[in-house]
Amino acid sequence: MDGHQRLHQIEQAAGRLFAERTYAGTSVRDIARELDLQGGSLYAHISSKEEVLWRIVERAGREFHDAVSSIAAGTGSAVDRLHRMIRGHVGVITTDPRLATVFLHEWKHLEGGWREKVLGMRDAYEGYFRDVISEGMDESEIASGDAALSTRFLLSALNGIALWYQTGGQLAPDELADACWSLFQSGMLLSSASAPNGH
Amino acid sequence: MDGHQRLHQIEQAAGRLFAERTYAGTSVRDIARELDLQGGSLYAHISSKEEVLWRIVERAGREFHDAVSSIAAGTGSAVDRLHRMIRGHVGVITTDPRLATVFLHEWKHLEGGWREKVLGMRDAYEGYFRDVISEGMDESEIASGDAALSTRFLLSALNGIALWYQTGGQLAPDELADACWSLFQSGMLLSSASAPNGH
Repeated sequence: MDGHQRLHQIEQAAGRLFAERTYAGTSVRDIARELDLQGGSLYAHISSKEEVLWRIVERAGREFHDAVSSIAAGTGSAVDRLHRMIRGHVGVITTDPRLATVFLHEWKHLEGGWREKVLGMRDAYEGYFRDVISEGMDESEIASGDAALSTRFLLSALNGIALWYQTGGQLAPDELADACWSLFQSGMLLSSASAPNGH
Repeated sequence: MDGHQRLHQIEQAAGRLFAERTYAGTSVRDIARELDLQGGSLYAHISSKEEVLWRIVERAGREFHDAVSSIAAGTGSAVDRLHRMIRGHVGVITTDPRLATVFLHEWKHLEGGWREKVLGMRDAYEGYFRDVISEGMDESEIASGDAALSTRFLLSALNGIALWYQTGGQLAPDELADACWSLFQSGMLLSSASAPNGH
């Protein structure tokens, strides 16, 4: 096994452990034990537990980015692109809910330059959604409002999927994405019902 | 200071630490240090770090319960009650985002009987929302659909507030609640825009 393969194994094992028992609750020795290695021999491949976390977060961030950025910049109405971006986002979560969990919740343990980078990645990623929603407002497809706030509600609703999704559940990933999109698109109220808030 | 006050202090200090550096990343010694106590003297008040977590989670769970259960069982249309339940839920989160964070994310470290209890509490709590949404569907106020799934998307969207809410931010708690409710109530699309999903 070459160094590249070993590094990949380390990331896989650490990702499972960070998702199950959190980053703070996992030691380098725990990661080594998963791979039947001595704790010390891991340091031939990584410099610290934090570096493993960074590598996992960076990889997950890249997968989310790759799933939506070209749709955001592509053709189609803002509403149509938003729908496809939601499918892309849910696709990444459901493909590997544990990887998504580490990306969504454990990144807070990163410090210094890595923390700066992940904050930048997260803001850029939210930006794809914010911008498409703003564009939809400008083009009178989407009701005017606070695009940043709508983005946060939307992404939080979708990210919750990582907490309860079971592979092989009742709904396929695209059905799950469409169920959430349907709520955000048209809301819960029957169109004949009165809207108490006058929205 | 009597034992009751000391226990309250321990819960406050532990709640701050669990929210900031996670349950797994906090030791009993860390909690004692926050209170200028010896680690050992904490055990006059608590039997374990897990017991402190349980006490915090139980208290937070009771606050969420108290904020919505009487509205759920009260008078008014399902849609009106749902709106007020959302305000109650957001009120608990914004009053103490750190307490909410521990309740929402750190409960997974509880085991055995405490874990069973918190799973029961969470399911009962989701049930208030599920039942009111189902009732709204039965009464043709809310478009028919999967009430359990809608509940999860709604609560996830709201719970995300705990991650980014800053006390003294631009929006008051009720405005934040109403912004989310507005999205779930009527959706994002301008009613004149076509709905690609035909919803």
